[in-house]
Amino acid sequence: MLIQLEESLSAELQDSIIEELKTHGYKASLVETRQAQYLICNGKKEADIRYFGNLPGVKDIHIVEDANKLVSRQWKVQDSEIRFDDETLISRDDLTIVMGPCSVEDEEQVIKTVEFLKENNIKFMRGGIFKPRSSPYSFRGLGIEGLKFFSAHCRANGIKVVSEVMQVSQIEPMYDYVDVFQVGTRNSQNYNLLDELGKADKPVLLKRGMSGTLQEFLASAEYIFSNGNENIILCERGIRTFEKAYRNTMDLNAIPFLRDKSHLPVFSDPSHGVGIRNYVEPIALASVMAGADGVLIEIHECPPKAFSDGDQTLDFYQARRAIQRLRETMELRKKLVVE
Amino acid sequence: MLIQLEESLSAELQDSIIEELKTHGYKASLVETRQAQYLICNGKKEADIRYFGNLPGVKDIHIVEDANKLVSRQWKVQDSEIRFDDETLISRDDLTIVMGPCSVEDEEQVIKTVEFLKENNIKFMRGGIFKPRSSPYSFRGLGIEGLKFFSAHCRANGIKVVSEVMQVSQIEPMYDYVDVFQVGTRNSQNYNLLDELGKADKPVLLKRGMSGTLQEFLASAEYIFSNGNENIILCERGIRTFEKAYRNTMDLNAIPFLRDKSHLPVFSDPSHGVGIRNYVEPIALASVMAGADGVLIEIHECPPKAFSDGDQTLDFYQARRAIQRLRETMELRKKLVVE
Amino acid sequence: MLIQLEESLSAELQDSIIEELKTHGYKASLVETRQAQYLICNGKKEADIRYFGNLPGVKDIHIVEDANKLVSRQWKVQDSEIRFDDETLISRDDLTIVMGPCSVEDEEQVIKTVEFLKENNIKFMRGGIFKPRSSPYSFRGLGIEGLKFFSAHCRANGIKVVSEVMQVSQIEPMYDYVDVFQVGTRNSQNYNLLDELGKADKPVLLKRGMSGTLQEFLASAEYIFSNGNENIILCERGIRTFEKAYRNTMDLNAIPFLRDKSHLPVFSDPSHGVGIRNYVEPIALASVMAGADGVLIEIHECPPKAFSDGDQTLDFYQARRAIQRLRETMELRKKLVVE
Amino acid sequence: MLIQLEESLSAELQDSIIEELKTHGYKASLVETRQAQYLICNGKKEADIRYFGNLPGVKDIHIVEDANKLVSRQWKVQDSEIRFDDETLISRDDLTIVMGPCSVEDEEQVIKTVEFLKENNIKFMRGGIFKPRSSPYSFRGLGIEGLKFFSAHCRANGIKVVSEVMQVSQIEPMYDYVDVFQVGTRNSQNYNLLDELGKADKPVLLKRGMSGTLQEFLASAEYIFSNGNENIILCERGIRTFEKAYRNTMDLNAIPFLRDKSHLPVFSDPSHGVGIRNYVEPIALASVMAGADGVLIEIHECPPKAFSDGDQTLDFYQARRAIQRLRETMELRKKLVVE
Repeated sequence: MLIQLEESLSAELQDSIIEELKTHGYKASLVETRQAQYLICNGKKEADIRYFGNLPGVKDIHIVEDANKLVSRQWKVQDSEIRFDDETLISRDDLTIVMGPCSVEDEEQVIKTVEFLKENNIKFMRGGIFKPRSSPYSFRGLGIEGLKFFSAHCRANGIKVVSEVMQVSQIEPMYDYVDVFQVGTRNSQNYNLLDELGKADKPVLLKRGMSGTLQEFLASAEYIFSNGNENIILCERGIRTFEKAYRNTMDLNAIPFLRDKSHLPVFSDPSHGVGIRNYVEPIALASVMAGADGVLIEIHECPPKAFSDGDQTLDFYQARRAIQRLRETMELRKKLVVE
Repeated sequence: MLIQLEESLSAELQDSIIEELKTHGYKASLVETRQAQYLICNGKKEADIRYFGNLPGVKDIHIVEDANKLVSRQWKVQDSEIRFDDETLISRDDLTIVMGPCSVEDEEQVIKTVEFLKENNIKFMRGGIFKPRSSPYSFRGLGIEGLKFFSAHCRANGIKVVSEVMQVSQIEPMYDYVDVFQVGTRNSQNYNLLDELGKADKPVLLKRGMSGTLQEFLASAEYIFSNGNENIILCERGIRTFEKAYRNTMDLNAIPFLRDKSHLPVFSDPSHGVGIRNYVEPIALASVMAGADGVLIEIHECPPKAFSDGDQTLDFYQARRAIQRLRETMELRKKLVVE
Repeated sequence: MLIQLEESLSAELQDSIIEELKTHGYKASLVETRQAQYLICNGKKEADIRYFGNLPGVKDIHIVEDANKLVSRQWKVQDSEIRFDDETLISRDDLTIVMGPCSVEDEEQVIKTVEFLKENNIKFMRGGIFKPRSSPYSFRGLGIEGLKFFSAHCRANGIKVVSEVMQVSQIEPMYDYVDVFQVGTRNSQNYNLLDELGKADKPVLLKRGMSGTLQEFLASAEYIFSNGNENIILCERGIRTFEKAYRNTMDLNAIPFLRDKSHLPVFSDPSHGVGIRNYVEPIALASVMAGADGVLIEIHECPPKAFSDGDQTLDFYQARRAIQRLRETMELRKKLVVE
Repeated sequence: MLIQLEESLSAELQDSIIEELKTHGYKASLVETRQAQYLICNGKKEADIRYFGNLPGVKDIHIVEDANKLVSRQWKVQDSEIRFDDETLISRDDLTIVMGPCSVEDEEQVIKTVEFLKENNIKFMRGGIFKPRSSPYSFRGLGIEGLKFFSAHCRANGIKVVSEVMQVSQIEPMYDYVDVFQVGTRNSQNYNLLDELGKADKPVLLKRGMSGTLQEFLASAEYIFSNGNENIILCERGIRTFEKAYRNTMDLNAIPFLRDKSHLPVFSDPSHGVGIRNYVEPIALASVMAGADGVLIEIHECPPKAFSDGDQTLDFYQARRAIQRLRETMELRKKLVVE
């Protein structure tokens, strides 16, 4: 059972609700986010939901049988949206396209990419400044200094910054320069990091673990939400299977599944999901028809010179074509849903 | 190196070409299909392809480095088509939709399904009469008697029959009643069956093994082709992974990969690929945008009463909507390619 | 519910038992093997097992909740043994070692291998004469002619012949020359083949499918048993996973699991399970400690010259050492169980 | 190319070696551990290893072609050992047994477990005080307060403390109370954590990622080593596959593989590897025959009352039997190697 409390509830009333729940055999945990206050109620008895629903101070109440409560569609039927200060919106009605290089390499690269994005009316730029690399001897990113110029050029052009955070101690130094914290596949179950991002008030783009089940993925989102942050994007990015013809196996089944089980927006990362440049566009278009609310695509002015992931990166010509086709595909999907 | 010989070549000329190849260090294996004659040439030396290409009797020649030769795009750049006697065509320019029940259950079911397909201008009906079941105590299909009425109703209405063959001894009794032999996932590496289907002159719809790599999948197609049958459809149907939220993990990466590496038509089976009714349509639409030439979808007038696979089966209302949306999606794909 | 009938039961008594079951809401299927007659009873009602157990003609009765009945440990608590005409025994008390080449190549190879086996007191020789190969252009085995000399040399030396059967039509020609029919991983769910092997009266060594679950594996064994053949060996041979450092991932968890859930003997094939020569012995020894009743190991006088699978094949020196160590490990296991 | 420098080398001599390498086209990175100083040399040219080997200040030099250098057997042929202050040794000659509960629950539990370990001459106790849980609403461990009494009782009885560290900020508060830092499967590629553990001077027991390849696993160990800590234990704990009959699929192939490719000690965790109480002992014994240097086993006085992982936990009676059998199995392995 999950309860949303009225806003600006007195401490006394809140305590009395918790006490009342206790009397009826429920243990309630309070979750506070920027938007609302919730009570997650666990108990063995069957709930008379109407009784609790009529208590003063209770705004909404639902039985939620999923292991994951706050992120569940059983709790919230409408799709969640993410609204930024300048009214930029991540929502079901518009396809969010996030583009940029795997790694931020230098200022000139950022300038050219920002220019490309602006020309094509793309509102989000991705770029890694801390890179998780499987070898300790590989390039590990420019760090905060890179983030500063990356952020400056984006903001001067009305573009939002999406960048990966790898550990708790990076949250604070990154905070002023990013608009969306990205959590990579290797940190998808780094619960301490998720806890702390739940306390920050910036949206989190959470990637699925490379062998994470969808239940685990939703549980990771629940960590963030239950720590106070409702602005979460779920991102499918391919899973690890026996097939080695491509980097990962894009699991597009996850798109309708996640959209069915959760109210959170669902993105797709075809660049990592297939890992081969020529297949990125068809998998991106397929993601849209499967129901994705957004796509992340790696681009670079000259992919063969990219510091990392060049093989899966589109050049600007290919990116322009993909943007055009993604938008036409989204138009069709919206039209079909209305019919 | 792969050579296509001129049609109606004399035996002498053919022998002399093989002899010439031998002199230059090549061992040639002759493959004869209904359409053409090929020499598959293995040798350690580097080929002077122009020299052999100019020999009398040689129609075409290419270096093919893939492990699989005849099915490779390196051999044939154009997309292969499958043409039936009545000019029905499986080709890249038109989306082939194959629909029908998992199991043929009785004549009334067939009549209703055929009627539905005719109304919606669907040209192919699938239906199992031999069912591979994991338990020996489950329903194992109606057998040839079921196939007879299934086939009669289809043919009376201009619909092609697609049905699964499970072993060599079934090929002959099924031959007169089917238009496309389907090979199921469990038989994807049943090489004796593939050999014999290579000798038959009916198209073969070959499903990927549930843990088959794409290299193995193409090798299975090569078995059929090298035994004399060029009319092969590759069908992705989901693979087995750690994720158990759905029946299988649909591997849509396979669609652009197979279309890139092979000239054969590529179909998608979203019913088995996701195995949950409500997700079948989005995955079917996604398949089209990923590049599929056709889709197989399980339908039933009343899915809860289906003898098998009811959970993944669409009813007629859902099927009609899916057909409409599949066709609009195909229209968009064709338009995008032209742009 | 599973019933074993008394031997030499009259047809009338048998019918009356089936009728009695029917009256109480059970549908009974009769299974006849060389050893016994069984009734597999399906019904929704709860069984009063004592009532049926006291019917004349009923020898034994158990509730079996497993999906697979006859192969289940719930039916039969004691370990099954396989006894050959000459009193050779496959049983829990003695480790069965099966050795031989991947492919039978020529008569000399067979003679040398038989000699080696005899010297080391090994009672079973494996050798492929029909080879499932992923490419149609690879060596596909010597066929029945090879089996004839393979069998002649083995039998002249008191060694049993184990060889893979790939399709129904091979059963009859192989019958006189083999002692154990092997079913390979690609045919683990080839139900027609399993049905027919159930009708033959030779033991079957059934390999697990390369992505077969253990439930599917037991169901495949149930196919053989329910067609009349109780002499089945379950053989773990490695599964397909994301890890590509070795040919397959040996799943030793399967050994205690299968021994717990089924009464059938359980073998291990470390040669395919790891696929790298130097790791075959440690994995073989580990199999024994995990509880295997037998091991299959590929050996060759000169592995680099083997027609197939040379990389995972032991030479005679390595094989001799492995035999010695396997026997000492088995001694320890028996001692530990007694303590 | 990897170079070990002489101890107490002057800064000038060190610089001159690096300069000399540079002149010959090599970029050298200095790695300092408590035991030694290394130069990891990358360059495109072929090395004349004798030339560099004769430079003053160079103690040892090898070509190492593995992606991972310092942990590779190509660098160091002898098995690495870990020696504690009190001369307790983790080495190939003795089987290290680590036992204890999944979670530390209270002081009484610790006291009873310590007593059991002491009676059975077990030198290492495991116990979680920070628990990674897939749901944010589950018990997450007692934290540092639990570690304090856990550590006090162990040390009073000569037992070493093994406990999981989940993030960088926990290293310092845990430092005084643990003898071995354990890194769990979800943090196996948490590179910031690995970097920092590389700077600490306590041994690290590193678990394989649940879908980590062995190359990635060795790379994670390389992170720790290259940051200065040579005392690393590699621990196989089961991987994620399609098979759901048990919690994970124990990959015993990894044991001989890791022992072949790396000089680091290799442990096995059968409790997580199979996850079912009755199968833990056979898989533990199998691990020893496969070559493991140590095993981790979860035990609890009363497994059904354990806060977490009770299903895979042995009670004291079972644990005592397992210890006895593990030791006898180790005796056999040592005897076989000598023969």
